[in-house]
Amino acid sequence: MSDYNAPLRDLRFVLHEVFNAQKVWDQLPKLQENVDIDTADAILEEAAKVTGQLISPLSREGDEQGARWHNGLVTTPDGFKEAYNTYIQGGWVGLSGNPDYGGMGMPKMLSVQFEEMLYAADSSFALYSALTSGACLAIDAHASAALKSLYLPPLYEGRWAGVMCLTEAHAGTDLGLIRTRATPNSDGSYSITGSKIFITGGEQDLTENIIHLVLAKLPDAPQGARGISLFLVPKIKVHADGSLGAANTVTCGSIEHKMGIKASATCVMNFDGATGYLIGEPNKGLAAMFTMMNYERLSIGIQGIGCAETSYQRASNYARERIQSRAATGMKHPDQAADPIIVHPDVRRMLLTMKSLTEGGRAFACYVGKQLDIAKFSSDSHLAAKAQDLVALLTPVAKAFFTDMGLDSCIHGQQVFGGHGYIREWGQEQLVRDVRIAQIYEGTNGIQALDLLGRKIIANRGEYLNAFTHSIREQVSTPGTLYTDEVLTAVERLEHISQWLLREAENNSNEVGAASVEYLHLFGYVAYAWMWSRMASTAQKNHAQDPDFYDAKLATAAFYFSRILPRTLSLEASIKAGSDSLFGLNAEQF
Amino acid sequence: MSDYNAPLRDLRFVLHEVFNAQKVWDQLPKLQENVDIDTADAILEEAAKVTGQLISPLSREGDEQGARWHNGLVTTPDGFKEAYNTYIQGGWVGLSGNPDYGGMGMPKMLSVQFEEMLYAADSSFALYSALTSGACLAIDAHASAALKSLYLPPLYEGRWAGVMCLTEAHAGTDLGLIRTRATPNSDGSYSITGSKIFITGGEQDLTENIIHLVLAKLPDAPQGARGISLFLVPKIKVHADGSLGAANTVTCGSIEHKMGIKASATCVMNFDGATGYLIGEPNKGLAAMFTMMNYERLSIGIQGIGCAETSYQRASNYARERIQSRAATGMKHPDQAADPIIVHPDVRRMLLTMKSLTEGGRAFACYVGKQLDIAKFSSDSHLAAKAQDLVALLTPVAKAFFTDMGLDSCIHGQQVFGGHGYIREWGQEQLVRDVRIAQIYEGTNGIQALDLLGRKIIANRGEYLNAFTHSIREQVSTPGTLYTDEVLTAVERLEHISQWLLREAENNSNEVGAASVEYLHLFGYVAYAWMWSRMASTAQKNHAQDPDFYDAKLATAAFYFSRILPRTLSLEASIKAGSDSLFGLNAEQF
Repeated sequence: MSDYNAPLRDLRFVLHEVFNAQKVWDQLPKLQENVDIDTADAILEEAAKVTGQLISPLSREGDEQGARWHNGLVTTPDGFKEAYNTYIQGGWVGLSGNPDYGGMGMPKMLSVQFEEMLYAADSSFALYSALTSGACLAIDAHASAALKSLYLPPLYEGRWAGVMCLTEAHAGTDLGLIRTRATPNSDGSYSITGSKIFITGGEQDLTENIIHLVLAKLPDAPQGARGISLFLVPKIKVHADGSLGAANTVTCGSIEHKMGIKASATCVMNFDGATGYLIGEPNKGLAAMFTMMNYERLSIGIQGIGCAETSYQRASNYARERIQSRAATGMKHPDQAADPIIVHPDVRRMLLTMKSLTEGGRAFACYVGKQLDIAKFSSDSHLAAKAQDLVALLTPVAKAFFTDMGLDSCIHGQQVFGGHGYIREWGQEQLVRDVRIAQIYEGTNGIQALDLLGRKIIANRGEYLNAFTHSIREQVSTPGTLYTDEVLTAVERLEHISQWLLREAENNSNEVGAASVEYLHLFGYVAYAWMWSRMASTAQKNHAQDPDFYDAKLATAAFYFSRILPRTLSLEASIKAGSDSLFGLNAEQF
Repeated sequence: MSDYNAPLRDLRFVLHEVFNAQKVWDQLPKLQENVDIDTADAILEEAAKVTGQLISPLSREGDEQGARWHNGLVTTPDGFKEAYNTYIQGGWVGLSGNPDYGGMGMPKMLSVQFEEMLYAADSSFALYSALTSGACLAIDAHASAALKSLYLPPLYEGRWAGVMCLTEAHAGTDLGLIRTRATPNSDGSYSITGSKIFITGGEQDLTENIIHLVLAKLPDAPQGARGISLFLVPKIKVHADGSLGAANTVTCGSIEHKMGIKASATCVMNFDGATGYLIGEPNKGLAAMFTMMNYERLSIGIQGIGCAETSYQRASNYARERIQSRAATGMKHPDQAADPIIVHPDVRRMLLTMKSLTEGGRAFACYVGKQLDIAKFSSDSHLAAKAQDLVALLTPVAKAFFTDMGLDSCIHGQQVFGGHGYIREWGQEQLVRDVRIAQIYEGTNGIQALDLLGRKIIANRGEYLNAFTHSIREQVSTPGTLYTDEVLTAVERLEHISQWLLREAENNSNEVGAASVEYLHLFGYVAYAWMWSRMASTAQKNHAQDPDFYDAKLATAAFYFSRILPRTLSLEASIKAGSDSLFGLNAEQF
C-alpha cells in the first residue's frame, strides 16, 4: 500500500514563493554553483517518486516484521535491502554532502524538504541514511584530511553507513557520566572499550561497512563533560586504499523491542578494544558532536512534520470517503445513507489543526534551513554570524515543537478514523508510535526546552531573541502583509514573558526549568504565527494564478490565528505562576 | 513483574474523607443493607491484592502474546484463564450487580474505585469482566423476568461473559445504518443474521458461555435509529434449567491486530440465523442500550485514570532512582555521580501534572458515582431525579476528560523515562497504547463532547448546568473551604461561555460541533478545580492526623490551581473565535 504522496505543490509554495529560494541562493556564491530552481524542482520530483513509490510501500510490513537480531547480526525487513540499493543509486545520502568528497552540496532549504518526504514515507527507513548524513557532518567538520578522504566518499554514496554512539545505560542526557575508554596505540590509533545503548542502525544488513562515531574518555581525561573525546570506529577495518580489511572488535549484543520505528535496529553495541581514530581534539568530543547537532536536531524535528503529513493525508481522504451521520445544518448528500464525516465541524477542527500545524512547521523548517545555509555559505561574515545566532536560537524550538505538534497531529489523524484508527492495518496508529520517539531521542524535548531558555535566552540576556523579533517586525511591516497586528501582539507576549523570565531567573535558577517546556511551546506558536502571516500574504499576492490553492492557504491561516494561536494565553499564565508549586512536595511525597 | 500497588490511602481519602460515603449510604436505605465503611474497606483491601498480585503481573507478557485466533477460537495469553478463575471466585464480576440474582449490590462510589484498580492492573484483562457488568445492567433493566433468572446469575458469577455487539463495518457512531436483521420465529425467539465488528471479548477461552447483546432490525422496523431492537444471543443455547445445550450459529470470523489492549480479543462476529431473544420493546433497542451507557461510559472513562495511575507510580519511582545531571540550585547528593532526576523542575512538572489530573479524576469519578447511587437508590424521587440530571450532564465529561487526561498523563509518564520509556520491557509505552483506545470506544470523545454540549447543555437551555454550578456554589461557600475564589472564577468562566454558546447556537447549529471538544475540556478543568478545592479543604481540616499525607494533597492542589487551571483561558478564547474558520475550505481543499 503506497499512500503517501509528497505535497509537491505545498513544498514549492514554501521554497519558491514564501522564501524565494533562488534569491537566497543567488546571494550565496558557493551554493549558486550547485543549485537553481530547475535543479531543485527536478530533485523534489524525483524525491517524490522515490519516497512515494519505493519507500512508503515498505512501511506497513516493515512495522510488522521489524528488524531481527540473531547471533550478532541484524536482518532488516523484506524489501529494505533492495529498496536501499535503489535509493542510494539516486545519490540521496550525499544530497547535502561536501562536493569535495562526492556530496551533492545541496542547500539545507532543499534537503529539509527531502527529509520531510523521507520521514513521511517511513521513519525507520529514513533513519538508516539520516544518521549517515549526520555522521558525515561531524567527520567533514572535525576529522583529519586523511580520514575525510578515506571515509566520506563511501558514506556519501551510501555504500557505508554512519552511526552515532553516545548513550550508555547510566548516561543519557548526562553524557559526562560515560565510562567507555579510549587508550592510545603506538600507531596513533586508539583502542576503544565500552558498551553503548540505543544505537540507531548500529548493525544492519544494508551496507558494506558501518562507521561508528563513539564518545569515549582518554586515560588522562578531566571529569565530566569536559573529558569526552570523539572517535571514528569502523565495523570493518579499512585499508589505506579504501578496501575493506579485517573485522574490528565491534559487536551488536542485542536490539531493543520498541513501541515503534520497529524496522530501525536500535542496538546495544559492544566495543572490545576496537580500533578507532580520534576526530578533532582530545577532550573536545562533545563540542565536535554539537557542531553537527543543529543540523541533526532540525532533521529529527522534521520527522514530526513528515509523520504528521502522512497522517493528515490519510485522515483527510478518509473524512471525504467515510459516511456517518448527517451535517448539523441539514443533509449534504441526500443520495447517500449519510454524509461524509468531513461535514462535521469537529472533524474539520481536527483536520485543520493538523494542517495548520504541519504547514506552519514546513515553513519554519525552510526558514531555519535558510539560516543554516546563510551561516554555512555566506561570504559576508557578519550575515553568517547573525544567521548562526538564529540557528542556535531556533534549532531547539524546531526539534521539540515539530515533534510535539507531530504527535498531537498523528493522534488527531488516528482519532478521525474512529475505531479503525486503532487497528494496525490502517497505519494511523503506526504513525503515532513512530513519531513518539522523535520527542525523546537526539535530546529529549525537555532538554531542548532547557537549551532554548537557559542557554539561548537567559545566558545572553535575550540577545538572539532580539535579533529574531527584529526580523519579524521588519518583515511584517512590509506593505501587503496580512495578520501584522496579530503577529505583533504575539511577539510582544513572547518578549514580555522573556523579560519576566530574565528577571525571575536571576533570583531563582529553578524558574528556568519550571518554565522551559511551556516557554518553548509559546515560542513555537508565535513563530508559526509569523509563518502563517507570510504564507497568507504570499497567497494573497499570488492569488489570481491559482485561486483554489491560495484560498485554502488563506482559510488555513484564518483557522490558525483564531483557533490555535490563543493557546499562548494559557502558556503565559502558567509560566507566570512560577516554580514554587513544583517544590511543595519532597521526593517521597510523590 | 508486579509493579502496581493500589493507592489505598488515596482511595479512602476520597471515599471516606472527601465524600463521606457512610453518610451517603445512611441516606440510601437500599444501599445501607449492603455496605458500610468496614465492608468497603475490606473490599478495597482485597481488590488491591487481586489487582496487584494476580492481574498486574500478567500485563506485560499478555501484551507480548496477545489474544490469538485459530479456526474461530480465541486463546487468551498464558495465565489469563487461571487468573480469571481465581478472580471470579472473589465475586468481583457481580460487585455492583442486583442481589436478587446473585449480585453483591455494592454502590457505584465503591465500584468505581475497584474499576480503577482493575484497569490500572491490566486494561485487557479488565475488559473481559467490565463488558459483562455492562451487559448485566442492560439485561437487569430491560429483559423479561425469565431471561433475567436464566442469565443473570451465571453472568454475575463470571462463569458466563456478557458482550455488546453494536458496531458494523459501515456503522459506528451512526448506528441507524446497521444492517443486522432479526426475524421472528414461531416460538417467540428471533433469528439474527448479520456481521458485527470491534466486538470486545466476542470470543475467548475464559468462560463456559458468552452472552451477546446484539442490535438488529426487525422486518418492519422504521428507518434509522428509531428502528433498532436489542437481542440476547447466547454463544451456546441455554436450556430452561440453565444447563448448556447446542451451539448457536454465532462464530468469530477473526480478531483485529491493534495498537494496544492486545490481550483483549476484538472480534468480528458473524450471526447466521442465530437464535436470540428480544430485550425490552421492539425498536427501542438504542434506548435500552443507553440506560446502561451512563454506567458503562463512566467505567470506560476510569480506564484513563487507572492507566495514568500506573504510569505515575512507575514514573515517580524512576524519577527517585534514576540519577542524571545536577540540580539547578546546586548538587543535592554529592555522594552520587549525579542527582536523581526528581530534583529537576521539568520532571516535577510532568509528575505533578500526572498526579493532579489523576487524583482530580479519582475524586470526580467518586462524585459521579455518588450521583449514580442517589439516582438509583434514593427513596426521595426529587433527589433521585436531580442526581439523574447530574449524571446525564457529567457522564460525557467523565468519559472523555478522564481518557484525554489519561493519554496525556501516560505520555508524560513515558517521557520521564527518557529513551527507556520507548522500550517495551519497561511497560510505560504499553500504557500509552492501552489507554489510547479509551478515547475512541464506547462513543469517541468527540461524540461525548457533542452529547455534552448539544444534548446536555443546549437542548435544555443550561438547566442541568445550573443545577451543577448551584451545587458548587453551595459547597464552596461552606466555612473552611480553600480556593473558593479560584473555583468561583472558574465556574463563572464556564457559565459565561455556556451562555455565549446558547446564544450562538440559536443562529448557527455548527457552533455546537465547533466548540464541543474544547468546551468539554473547559468543563473538565473547572470540575477538577472544584474537586481540588474539596480535597485541599479536607486535607487542611484533617491535617493533624497525618501531616505528611495531607501536605502532599495541599501542595498538589496548589500546583493544579497555578499551573493547570490556566488552560481554561485558551479554551475560552478558542471557543469564542467561533466556527467560521472551520468552513473556509471545501472538502477537496483539505
